[in-house]
Amino acid sequence: MESRLLARTNKITNTSGLSPTHLQANLLILPSAHAKSFHDLCRRNPVSCPLLATTPPGSPHTLNPPQTIHSPDFDIRTDCPAYRIYKHGKCIAQRRDILDLWTDTDDYVGFLIGCSFSFEDALGRAGLKPRHQETGAVVPMYRTNLPLLPAGVFTGATCIVSMRPYRAEDVERVRSVTRRFLATHGEPVAWGWEGMRELGIEDIGKPDFGEEPVIREGEVPVFWGCGVTPQVAVESAGDKIDGLVFAHEPGNMLITDLTD
Amino acid sequence: MESRLLARTNKITNTSGLSPTHLQANLLILPSAHAKSFHDLCRRNPVSCPLLATTPPGSPHTLNPPQTIHSPDFDIRTDCPAYRIYKHGKCIAQRRDILDLWTDTDDYVGFLIGCSFSFEDALGRAGLKPRHQETGAVVPMYRTNLPLLPAGVFTGATCIVSMRPYRAEDVERVRSVTRRFLATHGEPVAWGWEGMRELGIEDIGKPDFGEEPVIREGEVPVFWGCGVTPQVAVESAGDKIDGLVFAHEPGNMLITDLTD
Repeated sequence: MESRLLARTNKITNTSGLSPTHLQANLLILPSAHAKSFHDLCRRNPVSCPLLATTPPGSPHTLNPPQTIHSPDFDIRTDCPAYRIYKHGKCIAQRRDILDLWTDTDDYVGFLIGCSFSFEDALGRAGLKPRHQETGAVVPMYRTNLPLLPAGVFTGATCIVSMRPYRAEDVERVRSVTRRFLATHGEPVAWGWEGMRELGIEDIGKPDFGEEPVIREGEVPVFWGCGVTPQVAVESAGDKIDGLVFAHEPGNMLITDLTD
Repeated sequence: MESRLLARTNKITNTSGLSPTHLQANLLILPSAHAKSFHDLCRRNPVSCPLLATTPPGSPHTLNPPQTIHSPDFDIRTDCPAYRIYKHGKCIAQRRDILDLWTDTDDYVGFLIGCSFSFEDALGRAGLKPRHQETGAVVPMYRTNLPLLPAGVFTGATCIVSMRPYRAEDVERVRSVTRRFLATHGEPVAWGWEGMRELGIEDIGKPDFGEEPVIREGEVPVFWGCGVTPQVAVESAGDKIDGLVFAHEPGNMLITDLTD
């Protein structure tokens, strides 16, 4: 597919709005010794970490289920526009590919996690276009006090949420439009100013990731699960993870062949 | 199966320890109009609400998947030892069967939710027998501040957890033994005195359900997701649910033909 080829050849750096009918995926690649823990983490926290597909250990060209990406030349090490390299829970480098880090003798396992871009299209079609798409900004994201339920080496992490402001009277319609997207975070996890406080977010004007939101009179914040959460889980696991971990650079997603 | 027949004929009232190799299930039965919401609630919160099987609307004799219970005379309206009847979020009655409340013209949908009895057997086999089994008490359960992620009419509920005390140095082994039981709450959601405070539990000696725990010197509380949570979700939904809701009487589970 053309957008994925542009990503492989590093001709694009932000996949938002590209190939709108195709699901985009957050990416996490771990040493196989920790793959079971991470798989459990996804199964226990499907709203933050909706698992779309995995690679077999050591196989950068294969996904299960296979229909996720059906290009015969697929390579998970090149087909994201940009990657982050983690060691002992810290991001130590950024790369355009990881061909030299995942070689034939390594047994890494890749995980594709659903991304909110697909439900944003549905919101737009329902006349509820997300504000950050209108203003051309990156969606604001916040750390919360909502625990990510622990699994194996992944303990002590909390959930990241993304936020889109809507008029209070539109919240039920927003919930309803995004509900069916179970594979890509689904309906909101909280909404309203009281919902914000319950998540432990103190200042809506100061997101931890992304850009400052524009909230108009009469609007309230609406919060969704966010695919940055797996990277925070890796940070929390720290040196309990031996070896390198790779992730997509936020906003630089892997474009799949799956449709809504 | 004999235990289920004893339940149907109301010869038993507590299924703990019966048919130890068979999975026991929490039960919730809702009008079909709310079945989609509840199904979403289970998919979004699999640790608190691990869904084992459902009935088609209006079919008290059939389960999907069918191997859940393969007796040809299965009847979800009689085969629990005891039932609770909810209206507008309040428990208004207790019954030994609900044959007169779910008649041929009703379109109720039944949900079977995994129960912790199965991982308790595994803990016992690993030399980590749960304290309440030693003392012959009902496991202590607590309300927490951990949100149950909302789905449709099910908003505003928080998770219930069950607690078993263990020595701090045994916690990793306890986590490891229960990890594989993903269909029945899996590994703990929190542990230790700090974990207790993070869940918002103030007094470990005063559970909200079940009986007061016995905690010995050097032991810490370990908390698991709990199948009472769906009933609390029904209470929180209140009059957003039209019609009656039925549940098992706590401790009086439906015994399935599934094994670990």
